[in-house]
Parts: sequence; structure tokens; C-alpha cells
Amino acid sequence: MKILGIDPGYGILGWAVIASELKVISYGTIQTASGERIDERLLKIQDSLIEIIETHRPDCAAIERLFFSRNTTTALDVAKTMGVILLTLRRNGIDYAEYAPVQVKRAITGYGKAAKEQMQIMIMRIFNIGEIPKPDDAADAIAIAACHALAQR
Amino acid sequence: MKILGIDPGYGILGWAVIASELKVISYGTIQTASGERIDERLLKIQDSLIEIIETHRPDCAAIERLFFSRNTTTALDVAKTMGVILLTLRRNGIDYAEYAPVQVKRAITGYGKAAKEQMQIMIMRIFNIGEIPKPDDAADAIAIAACHALAQR
Repeated sequence: MKILGIDPGYGILGWAVIASELKVISYGTIQTASGERIDERLLKIQDSLIEIIETHRPDCAAIERLFFSRNTTTALDVAKTMGVILLTLRRNGIDYAEYAPVQVKRAITGYGKAAKEQMQIMIMRIFNIGEIPKPDDAADAIAIAACHALAQR
Repeated sequence: MKILGIDPGYGILGWAVIASELKVISYGTIQTASGERIDERLLKIQDSLIEIIETHRPDCAAIERLFFSRNTTTALDVAKTMGVILLTLRRNGIDYAEYAPVQVKRAITGYGKAAKEQMQIMIMRIFNIGEIPKPDDAADAIAIAACHALAQR
């Protein structure tokens, strides 16, 4: 089974496709420029997401759950992006699960407050890879997808 | 020029199409059931919005600006809906403007804290109609569209 992991964001959205037997298939980021209008950015994000879905045909998706930030504009704009992500998944018949950051950390390291370095070490170990994928947003998307793979066992 | 007014929401979304010379062309609501998953609701909202756009071919849109609510889940879900609305407008080449409730009230009544009854009286007067459109969400969408029409003058 192929799992699409998504670390939502409108400036940088991290994504990863993994096999449920914990093999990394592909990963990357969708980036939009801060000078652009939010509607243009949402359009680019959907276009890129459709391309990823058509290329990799994931069976399901795992997304980091939004939490309420104090930075109101940012929180609302990330939520707008989330709306576009959920719509695009539904249009393509892809079911999704949401995980809070603490759930992802607990699934990967056994500890809900694990530091970034501990997460990176465990991601390399779990996937048997020599170096941590870059940038961090893509690595986070791999961790979210891995959390879902482990939760299914 | 045809203006599409939108009062965003995922339970009830109010919409109205008016002519910029202040004539109501059509209005209504898009409703989704509270028991449904948010991704299903977003899909239905987009489908309905596309149907409205294809039927009425608005030249531009006016949307009520989101404000940060204390009810975090509701605020984030309305923002997700807003993301789908903005995406759908952009895909159809429709530019939009956002107005805060206080701006809409000031444009329609001259007073930013106007009561609902005052708004309804002015909407009937401005559009020369004998009764206030129902439900309130559709009437709000008419007011938002009217605010944009008046702002263009």
C-alpha cells in the first residue's frame, strides 16, 4: 500500500510517498512565493498535488493535524491550504487520517516530545537510509506517512 | 457587471448574484449535513459553487472576511471552506475582494455597528424589493455583494 504523507503549509508544503512496508518511494516540497496572492498559491498547490497523485497513485494519505496558532493570519491561511488538500484528496478518492505532532513523535520514537535530532535518527533507522531527507518539511512528511503505516499494523 | 456575494460557511454558505446597478439576480444557500466528513462537505460546496458560477457567470466576487473565533474547530473549518472558495474562484478566473462585517454594515447603512433589522430595511430599500430575502445567510450575501458594488462607485 502506498501512503502519501503531507506536512501542510502554503509557503512550503512537505510531501512524501512511502510503501507501507516502510520504504521511501519519493518526497519533496511544494513551494509558493510570499508575494503571491493566496488564491494563486492555492491554485499552484492543488496543481502540484494533482501531479504527485497522478504520478504515484497513493492508496491513502496521512496529514499533520492543524493546531491553533496565536498568529491568526498564518493559522487561517494554513487552514485554507488544508481545505484545498482535503478537497483534492476527496476528488481523487483518497481517504486520509490526521495525526497531531505528538502522535507522530510517539509513533516514531516512543516519546511524544522527542527532539528533531532523535526523530531524524529514527527515520534513518526505520527506513534504512544513510542520510536524512532534505528539507525538513519533506522529512516531516515522511515521518507523518510512517506514523500512519505503523498505526495500521 | 455581475457580482457574486458569498457569506462563507461549511454548514450553510450564503450566496447571491447581483448586477452592479443594484438589482438582485439570484440568491440561495449551499448546505451540508453536520454528520458528514469535512472532505465530503468541501467537495459538495465546490460542486455547488461551480454550478452557480456556470449558471450566472459572475464577473467578480465579494466575500466576507474571516475573523478569528474563539471556537477553534469552527474557525479552522470555515477557513478550509474559504480555501476551497478562493481556489474555485481562481480556477474560473474570477477576482474577489474581501470585506469585514463592519465594512459591509457601514456601506449599507452608514453605521458599522448597525443591527440586523436596520441592515434588512436598507437592503430592501437599496434593491427596491418588498421583502427581505431568506434565509439570513442569503441576505448577508446580498449585503456583501452590494457593499462591493457601492465600493466600486
